Amino acid sequence: MNKFLSDKVINRLTLYHSILTDYLEKGTEYISSPQIADLLHIDNTQVRKDIAKLKYKGKCKVGYKTKELKSLIEETLKFKTVKKAYIVGAGNLGMALAKYDNFEAYGFNISALFDNSFMKIGSVINGKKVYDIDKLPEMTKLNNVKIVILTVPRQFAQDVTDFLVKSGIKYIWNFTPCVLNVPSSVQVWNENLIGNFLQFTVKQSENIFEL
Amino acid sequence: MNKFLSDKVINRLTLYHSILTDYLEKGTEYISSPQIADLLHIDNTQVRKDIAKLKYKGKCKVGYKTKELKSLIEETLKFKTVKKAYIVGAGNLGMALAKYDNFEAYGFNISALFDNSFMKIGSVINGKKVYDIDKLPEMTKLNNVKIVILTVPRQFAQDVTDFLVKSGIKYIWNFTPCVLNVPSSVQVWNENLIGNFLQFTVKQSENIFEL
Repeated sequence: MNKFLSDKVINRLTLYHSILTDYLEKGTEYISSPQIADLLHIDNTQVRKDIAKLKYKGKCKVGYKTKELKSLIEETLKFKTVKKAYIVGAGNLGMALAKYDNFEAYGFNISALFDNSFMKIGSVINGKKVYDIDKLPEMTKLNNVKIVILTVPRQFAQDVTDFLVKSGIKYIWNFTPCVLNVPSSVQVWNENLIGNFLQFTVKQSENIFEL
Repeated sequence: MNKFLSDKVINRLTLYHSILTDYLEKGTEYISSPQIADLLHIDNTQVRKDIAKLKYKGKCKVGYKTKELKSLIEETLKFKTVKKAYIVGAGNLGMALAKYDNFEAYGFNISALFDNSFMKIGSVINGKKVYDIDKLPEMTKLNNVKIVILTVPRQFAQDVTDFLVKSGIKYIWNFTPCVLNVPSSVQVWNENLIGNFLQFTVKQSENIFEL
């Protein structure tokens, strides 16, 4: 069924999930599609359409059961399924992501970081140890890790990627600004922060820009 | 014209731009749509379609002029237009983004960070000073800054957002996992890292998951 959810729907569902989490913390039992739509400045019918895709119907007048809808999104997007991953590159971004506890709620289990700097190897970030990159091939096999979050400097991105591919990594979440050259057996998700934000700025009125 | 580019096209154009940058560094004068398509594991006709939207035609057999196409993408996506922004929250992610020089190539001018911790105020990250958050309202007016990159901890996200709105910030690039409640005069771009990556993992075959 997940195969039928578009990227935009999945993205919105995770936003609905954040809202539901907040509402649940506040002890709100029901939430309506207009409440969700208002917070995201999107159309209420869009919210209803997305949630209908989960085969879930709200109650007339009162809306959706916060807890039920939250669980259903978690189930649909497989939050409960553990996704083992390593962070490669213990620089600022790598450390930031290692300290980003929110990943765990979504099933990401980031158990270790890797780097080639002796200044970093052996240190522990948020309970995760930084290992020598040379240890990666052995550890990926040992722990059956197939996902790497890549946060190395631009100039090393391709060489490190070649090394990851040789080590049996199948999925790379690429935070570098490089387009990585990988065989078709390996999948790269380009985070492309700049691209994400340009989608936003390019469409804004000129007053966003200081000419 | 930019208004007619979809988010996905804009996102792909930034990826093409990275490829063109690499090729230009290598001194490659021409690049073909299949070369770009292969690197991104997408369809060659998709690349041609996207580039056709820029009203740019390649030469039969040889392809596109690397330098010309690169400049055209920069022009279309307004890389040369300076976009002044502040980073609010000088934690790990805020510091990582402050050190991410690549932003400048895209016209982002991040001139300062803001925090409320006396441990951080006054320090300098990658040439950018960390100021007391109380100074933000005055400085945004003084420097005509309308964009904030929000990297504060989850529990402070909404309070800080209310403060940014009062201070005249119009665009918030939200890296927190919260959905922010803002008036319709303010626009929020939810980076939603998790949503981005789930788009990728949810559609993968089960072998990405360790059950």
